[in-house]
Amino acid sequence: MAVFERIAVIGAGLIGASIALAARESGAANVIALYDANAEVRQRARELGLGDVSDDPEGAVAQADLVVLAVPVGAMGAAAAACARGLKAGAIVTDVGSVKQAVVEAVSAALPSHAYFVPGHPLAGTEHSGPDAGFATLFHNRWQILTPLKHDRADYAAAVDRLEDFWHALGANVERMDAERHDVVLAVTSHLPHLIAFNIVAMAEDLESVTESEVVKYSASGFRDFTRIAASDPTMWRDVFLNNKDAVLEVLGRFSEDLAALQRAIRWGEGDALYALFDRARRMRREVIEAGQDTAAPNFGRDRS
Amino acid sequence: MAVFERIAVIGAGLIGASIALAARESGAANVIALYDANAEVRQRARELGLGDVSDDPEGAVAQADLVVLAVPVGAMGAAAAACARGLKAGAIVTDVGSVKQAVVEAVSAALPSHAYFVPGHPLAGTEHSGPDAGFATLFHNRWQILTPLKHDRADYAAAVDRLEDFWHALGANVERMDAERHDVVLAVTSHLPHLIAFNIVAMAEDLESVTESEVVKYSASGFRDFTRIAASDPTMWRDVFLNNKDAVLEVLGRFSEDLAALQRAIRWGEGDALYALFDRARRMRREVIEAGQDTAAPNFGRDRS
Repeated sequence: MAVFERIAVIGAGLIGASIALAARESGAANVIALYDANAEVRQRARELGLGDVSDDPEGAVAQADLVVLAVPVGAMGAAAAACARGLKAGAIVTDVGSVKQAVVEAVSAALPSHAYFVPGHPLAGTEHSGPDAGFATLFHNRWQILTPLKHDRADYAAAVDRLEDFWHALGANVERMDAERHDVVLAVTSHLPHLIAFNIVAMAEDLESVTESEVVKYSASGFRDFTRIAASDPTMWRDVFLNNKDAVLEVLGRFSEDLAALQRAIRWGEGDALYALFDRARRMRREVIEAGQDTAAPNFGRDRS
Repeated sequence: MAVFERIAVIGAGLIGASIALAARESGAANVIALYDANAEVRQRARELGLGDVSDDPEGAVAQADLVVLAVPVGAMGAAAAACARGLKAGAIVTDVGSVKQAVVEAVSAALPSHAYFVPGHPLAGTEHSGPDAGFATLFHNRWQILTPLKHDRADYAAAVDRLEDFWHALGANVERMDAERHDVVLAVTSHLPHLIAFNIVAMAEDLESVTESEVVKYSASGFRDFTRIAASDPTMWRDVFLNNKDAVLEVLGRFSEDLAALQRAIRWGEGDALYALFDRARRMRREVIEAGQDTAAPNFGRDRS
């Protein structure tokens, strides 16, 4: 049974396209409207049959019971403002941004009081982007984090529950958390890893000592793993770092401090300290696999092909 | 046709076990002797049927045409010394160490002049270790780097060619390089990526702001990729960093310098600089895939299961 009669997805990239496909495949919505600010993306969304593609945002959200803002974090406020006048009373609005406090501020300021804003973040994706990258099973068994606003009203609580039902229908596991906590946790589990990957890959492109083609040729010895996450959408990630600055700088400071200690241990030949640290890091892998967050197959199973 | 009548593999971990299995499966050797300094590993190697397991290294290498030292870099000198008296005249000795200059020094000093030492490094492996982790196809379409010593003698050149034939028979692509160059290139493509991964994973274990179980729970948002290479054998990696200190410290210095610039760009909200860097990093992924060094499937294809 449909959770919502009609939904509108604003932004038809990897995440927006996947939501549209998953909502149809699961039957979580009966009618799926889409809008993207880029005319070429709208055209491609039509060709892919992602839903009823509209050429204006107010038209897309008219009569929608749920509106999903699936644009980069820095564009959330503008996307909300562009839809605002089309929203029906009682519409639920959510987003998929990787940062929550900044989005809460920007979107809340743009929406009318007759809509319910329930911020969210699906921890799902690939290194690919654009409408062609979307697929219906993207959210299966992945976490969807909701960071509801601090409202005591029963109608708001009901809107949150209903959005949770929607994500369950798409195959996700749902967690609730406050926006501040979300931003700290994701700075560690997602933002810093991406920053480190971007940094090492960009660095390797213009070394004096080793050519780029050598790096590519011998990348299977470790480097290639980093190129995957460094292939993620640059606009999305620019916005993440600009909008979660404090938490990212905090954890980056800690990373650099620890790296300096490791550097010193290498310089002074402290084998026991290196061993102890590497052994400690190794244990985390087991826990990640036991938690169902990665495959146990060696090399991510990529050598099976 | 066999490249060698009899080979001996010293060290029955992931790499040694894989060489034994690959040599048998490919027919590259008719008799495969093995030795490991650890009695439990020898026992396991017998149970797995990896070859003729010997309880002493001199016995294992007796009459061997090729001896492969497959132990951590820091144990290479001792492994060579332990076999030295058993080596027949004209035996070829190679190794699989991830560092070459330090191994060349340690092994050359331990071997008799009637053996040919041809250093080597297969760029192949998984995050697993021990005899059970070995498999026969590990070297298929992976690089095997040989760093021959600077000899003008024709018999030495013939030994290098024969070792190259052996690795081809195991499915590898062979490159020759000098040892110093190898150590600089691998510091970038392998040693630094592993160091960074060990550092971020160990850091995430004892943060004040975020618990270890939160990191594990939400690791699929990026962090999990790092846990894979941080699960690699700690003894092996300790020895790599202790024995390729100069090249690692050099490239680590450059990484930290670039990371400081990135940190500054975040602090000052320099969106254009961030975008340009992320966009540049993205291109490298394409080249890695075009070079056949990684799968093009999103998320390494691990979500197929």
